[in-house]
Amino acid sequence: MSKINIQEKLSEFDDHWNPRILAQLNGQDVRVAKVEGTFDWHHHDHEDEMFLVIDGVLELRFKDRVEILKAGEMMVVPRGIEHQPHADDECAILLFEPSTTVNTGNVESERTRRTLETLT
Amino acid sequence: MSKINIQEKLSEFDDHWNPRILAQLNGQDVRVAKVEGTFDWHHHDHEDEMFLVIDGVLELRFKDRVEILKAGEMMVVPRGIEHQPHADDECAILLFEPSTTVNTGNVESERTRRTLETLT
Repeated sequence: MSKINIQEKLSEFDDHWNPRILAQLNGQDVRVAKVEGTFDWHHHDHEDEMFLVIDGVLELRFKDRVEILKAGEMMVVPRGIEHQPHADDECAILLFEPSTTVNTGNVESERTRRTLETLT
Repeated sequence: MSKINIQEKLSEFDDHWNPRILAQLNGQDVRVAKVEGTFDWHHHDHEDEMFLVIDGVLELRFKDRVEILKAGEMMVVPRGIEHQPHADDECAILLFEPSTTVNTGNVESERTRRTLETLT
Protein backbone atom coordinates (compact mmCIF):
# COMPACT_ATOMS: atom_id res chain seq x y z
CA MET A 1 0.00 0.00 0.00
CA SER A 2 1.72 3.13 -1.20
CA LYS A 3 0.87 6.16 -3.26
CA ILE A 4 0.89 6.09 -7.06
CA ASN A 5 2.02 8.95 -9.27
CA ILE A 6 -0.01 8.64 -12.47
CA GLN A 7 2.49 10.46 -14.72
CA GLU A 8 5.35 8.31 -13.47
CA LYS A 9 3.38 5.20 -14.32
CA LEU A 10 2.52 6.54 -17.77
CA SER A 11 6.23 7.09 -18.44
CA GLU A 12 6.84 3.35 -18.06
CA PHE A 13 5.26 2.35 -21.36
CA ASP A 14 4.73 3.66 -24.87
CA ASP A 15 2.37 1.34 -26.71
CA HIS A 16 -1.22 2.19 -27.53
CA TRP A 17 -4.52 0.51 -26.60
CA ASN A 18 -2.83 -1.77 -24.07
CA PRO A 19 -4.19 -0.87 -20.63
CA ARG A 20 -2.10 -1.44 -17.52
CA ILE A 21 -3.51 -2.00 -14.05
CA LEU A 22 -2.59 0.73 -11.58
CA ALA A 23 -4.64 -0.48 -8.64
CA GLN A 24 -7.46 -2.84 -7.68
CA LEU A 25 -10.21 -2.24 -5.16
CA ASN A 26 -13.67 -3.65 -4.50
CA GLY A 27 -13.47 -5.93 -7.54
CA GLN A 28 -12.66 -2.96 -9.76
CA ASP A 29 -9.52 -2.01 -11.66
CA VAL A 30 -7.97 1.40 -12.02
CA ARG A 31 -6.20 1.17 -15.36
CA VAL A 32 -4.14 3.56 -17.44
CA ALA A 33 -3.65 3.48 -21.19
CA LYS A 34 -2.16 5.51 -23.99
CA VAL A 35 -4.36 5.66 -27.06
CA GLU A 36 -3.99 7.05 -30.56
CA GLY A 37 -6.06 6.44 -33.65
CA THR A 38 -9.39 4.65 -33.77
CA PHE A 39 -10.42 1.70 -31.59
CA ASP A 40 -12.99 -0.99 -32.34
CA TRP A 41 -16.69 -0.30 -31.99
CA HIS A 42 -17.78 -2.42 -29.03
CA HIS A 43 -19.89 -2.59 -25.90
CA HIS A 44 -19.62 -4.32 -22.55
CA ASP A 45 -22.56 -6.54 -21.64
CA HIS A 46 -22.07 -6.40 -17.88
CA GLU A 47 -19.73 -3.54 -17.08
CA ASP A 48 -20.09 0.22 -16.89
CA GLU A 49 -16.83 1.86 -17.87
CA MET A 50 -15.40 5.20 -16.79
CA PHE A 51 -12.91 7.19 -18.85
CA LEU A 52 -10.91 10.05 -17.31
CA VAL A 53 -8.56 11.96 -19.60
CA ILE A 54 -5.12 12.66 -18.10
CA ASP A 55 -3.37 14.19 -21.14
CA GLY A 56 -4.62 15.02 -24.62
CA VAL A 57 -8.06 14.76 -26.14
CA LEU A 58 -10.27 11.68 -26.34
CA GLU A 59 -13.23 11.30 -28.65
CA LEU A 60 -15.90 8.94 -27.44
CA ARG A 61 -18.04 8.12 -30.44
CA PHE A 62 -21.54 6.81 -29.95
CA LYS A 63 -24.06 5.75 -32.56
CA ASP A 64 -25.90 9.07 -32.29
CA ARG A 65 -23.20 11.56 -31.25
CA VAL A 66 -19.62 12.22 -30.21
CA GLU A 67 -18.29 13.48 -26.88
CA ILE A 68 -14.92 15.25 -26.85
CA LEU A 69 -13.08 14.88 -23.53
CA LYS A 70 -10.06 16.96 -22.59
CA ALA A 71 -7.70 16.56 -19.64
CA GLY A 72 -9.66 16.68 -16.40
CA GLU A 73 -12.87 15.50 -18.06
CA MET A 74 -14.49 12.14 -17.51
CA MET A 75 -17.44 10.13 -18.69
CA VAL A 76 -19.22 6.94 -17.70
CA VAL A 77 -20.29 4.68 -20.57
CA PRO A 78 -23.06 2.42 -19.23
CA ARG A 79 -23.08 -1.29 -20.00
CA GLY A 80 -24.68 -2.16 -23.32
CA ILE A 81 -23.86 1.14 -25.02
CA GLU A 82 -21.89 0.87 -28.26
CA HIS A 83 -18.87 3.13 -28.27
CA GLN A 84 -15.71 3.75 -30.23
CA PRO A 85 -12.81 5.57 -28.57
CA HIS A 86 -10.70 7.68 -30.90
CA ALA A 87 -7.77 10.09 -30.49
CA ASP A 88 -6.28 12.17 -33.30
CA ASP A 89 -3.06 12.47 -31.28
CA GLU A 90 -1.71 10.45 -28.40
CA CYS A 91 -3.92 10.69 -25.34
CA ALA A 92 -3.46 9.26 -21.86
CA ILE A 93 -6.51 7.98 -20.02
CA LEU A 94 -7.40 6.49 -16.69
CA LEU A 95 -10.09 3.81 -16.68
CA PHE A 96 -12.21 2.68 -13.77
CA GLU A 97 -14.10 -0.53 -14.40
CA PRO A 98 -14.71 -4.03 -13.02
CA SER A 99 -11.66 -6.29 -13.13
CA THR A 100 -13.65 -8.59 -15.45
CA THR A 101 -13.78 -5.95 -18.20
CA VAL A 102 -12.16 -6.92 -21.50
CA ASN A 103 -11.01 -3.86 -23.43
CA THR A 104 -12.78 -4.73 -26.68
CA GLY A 105 -15.96 -5.90 -24.92
CA ASN A 106 -18.11 -8.08 -27.19
CA VAL A 107 -15.61 -7.87 -30.06
CA GLU A 108 -12.50 -9.96 -30.63
CA SER A 109 -9.75 -8.13 -32.51
CA GLU A 110 -5.99 -7.84 -32.65
CA ARG A 111 -6.31 -5.25 -29.91
CA THR A 112 -8.10 -7.54 -27.47
CA ARG A 113 -6.17 -7.85 -24.20
CA ARG A 114 -7.38 -10.53 -21.80
CA THR A 115 -4.37 -10.42 -19.50
CA LEU A 116 -3.15 -7.06 -18.34
CA GLU A 117 0.18 -6.10 -16.86
CA THR A 118 0.10 -4.57 -13.40
CA LEU A 119 2.37 -1.57 -12.90
CA THR A 120 3.97 -1.98 -9.49
CA MET B 1 -24.90 10.21 -20.11
CA SER B 2 -22.63 13.14 -20.79
CA LYS B 3 -19.09 14.17 -19.98
CA ILE B 4 -18.16 15.71 -16.65
CA ASN B 5 -15.57 18.44 -16.16
CA ILE B 6 -14.11 17.89 -12.70
CA GLN B 7 -13.01 21.51 -12.16
CA GLU B 8 -16.43 22.81 -13.15
CA LYS B 9 -18.04 20.52 -10.60
CA LEU B 10 -15.58 21.59 -7.90
CA SER B 11 -16.53 25.21 -8.53
CA GLU B 12 -20.12 24.45 -7.53
CA PHE B 13 -19.42 24.13 -3.79
CA ASP B 14 -17.12 25.49 -1.11
CA ASP B 15 -17.60 23.51 2.07
CA HIS B 16 -15.12 21.00 3.40
CA TRP B 17 -15.40 17.27 4.17
CA ASN B 18 -18.75 17.01 2.41
CA PRO B 19 -18.33 14.70 -0.60
CA ARG B 20 -20.55 15.08 -3.65
CA ILE B 21 -21.37 12.29 -6.08
CA LEU B 22 -20.07 12.90 -9.60
CA ALA B 23 -21.03 9.58 -11.12
CA GLN B 24 -22.10 6.05 -10.25
CA LEU B 25 -21.09 2.83 -11.95
CA ASN B 26 -21.00 -0.85 -11.03
CA GLY B 27 -22.21 -0.13 -7.51
CA GLN B 28 -19.40 2.37 -6.99
CA ASP B 29 -19.42 6.13 -6.54
CA VAL B 30 -17.07 8.66 -8.03
CA ARG B 31 -17.12 11.47 -5.49
CA VAL B 32 -15.38 14.80 -5.19
CA ALA B 33 -14.66 16.72 -2.02
CA LYS B 34 -12.80 19.76 -0.79
CA VAL B 35 -10.91 19.16 2.42
CA GLU B 36 -8.93 21.30 4.81
CA GLY B 37 -7.73 20.59 8.33
CA THR B 38 -7.81 17.22 10.05
CA PHE B 39 -10.49 14.56 9.61
CA ASP B 40 -11.50 11.83 12.05
CA TRP B 41 -9.42 8.69 12.47
CA HIS B 42 -11.56 5.89 11.02
CA HIS B 43 -11.64 2.76 8.93
CA HIS B 44 -14.16 1.12 6.62
CA ASP B 45 -15.05 -2.46 7.50
CA HIS B 46 -16.15 -3.51 4.04
CA GLU B 47 -14.90 -0.94 1.55
CA ASP B 48 -11.56 -0.18 -0.03
CA GLU B 49 -11.27 3.52 -0.74
CA MET B 50 -9.29 5.33 -3.39
CA PHE B 51 -8.10 8.93 -3.08
CA LEU B 52 -6.91 10.88 -6.13
CA VAL B 53 -5.67 14.42 -5.53
CA ILE B 54 -6.94 16.99 -8.04
CA ASP B 55 -5.56 20.20 -6.48
CA GLY B 56 -3.38 20.79 -3.44
CA VAL B 57 -1.70 18.36 -1.08
CA LEU B 58 -3.37 15.60 0.94
CA GLU B 59 -1.79 13.86 3.89
CA LEU B 60 -3.01 10.34 4.52
CA ARG B 61 -1.99 9.47 8.05
CA PHE B 62 -1.74 5.83 9.10
CA LYS B 63 -0.87 4.41 12.48
CA ASP B 64 2.71 3.72 11.39
CA ARG B 65 3.42 6.38 8.76
CA VAL B 66 2.16 9.25 6.62
CA GLU B 67 1.78 9.44 2.84
CA ILE B 68 1.84 12.87 1.18
CA LEU B 69 -0.15 13.00 -2.06
CA LYS B 70 0.09 15.85 -4.55
CA ALA B 71 -2.06 16.58 -7.59
CA GLY B 72 -1.98 13.61 -9.94
CA GLU B 73 -1.17 11.17 -7.16
CA MET B 74 -3.53 8.51 -5.83
CA MET B 75 -3.68 5.83 -3.19
CA VAL B 76 -5.92 2.93 -2.29
CA VAL B 77 -6.64 2.49 1.42
CA PRO B 78 -7.76 -1.12 1.90
CA ARG B 79 -10.73 -1.97 4.09
CA GLY B 80 -9.92 -2.27 7.76
CA ILE B 81 -6.96 0.14 7.69
CA GLU B 82 -7.18 3.05 10.11
CA HIS B 83 -6.52 6.36 8.40
CA GLN B 84 -6.82 10.06 9.01
CA PRO B 85 -6.94 12.44 6.04
CA HIS B 86 -5.41 15.85 6.65
CA ALA B 87 -4.71 18.94 4.53
CA ASP B 88 -2.79 22.00 5.74
CA ASP B 89 -4.45 24.05 3.00
CA GLU B 90 -7.55 23.43 0.93
CA CYS B 91 -7.22 20.36 -1.24
CA ALA B 92 -9.59 18.90 -3.83
CA ILE B 93 -9.87 15.14 -4.09
CA LEU B 94 -11.66 12.58 -6.16
CA LEU B 95 -12.81 9.41 -4.40
CA PHE B 96 -13.65 6.00 -5.88
CA GLU B 97 -15.47 3.75 -3.49
CA PRO B 98 -18.58 1.60 -3.15
CA SER B 99 -21.81 3.59 -2.96
CA THR B 100 -22.32 2.12 0.53
CA THR B 101 -19.25 3.92 1.90
CA VAL B 102 -19.90 6.35 4.76
CA ASN B 103 -17.22 9.04 4.89
CA THR B 104 -16.33 8.56 8.57
CA GLY B 105 -16.46 4.77 8.35
CA ASN B 106 -16.80 3.16 11.78
CA VAL B 107 -16.93 6.54 13.54
CA GLU B 108 -19.91 8.83 14.05
CA SER B 109 -19.00 12.52 14.21
CA GLU B 110 -20.35 15.90 13.23
CA ARG B 111 -18.70 15.30 9.86
CA THR B 112 -20.57 12.08 9.13
CA ARG B 113 -22.54 12.34 5.88
CA ARG B 114 -24.97 9.51 5.19
CA THR B 115 -26.79 11.20 2.34
CA LEU B 116 -24.72 12.81 -0.38
CA GLU B 117 -25.72 15.37 -2.94
CA THR B 118 -25.30 14.36 -6.57
CA LEU B 119 -23.83 17.04 -8.84
CA THR B 120 -25.76 16.90 -12.07
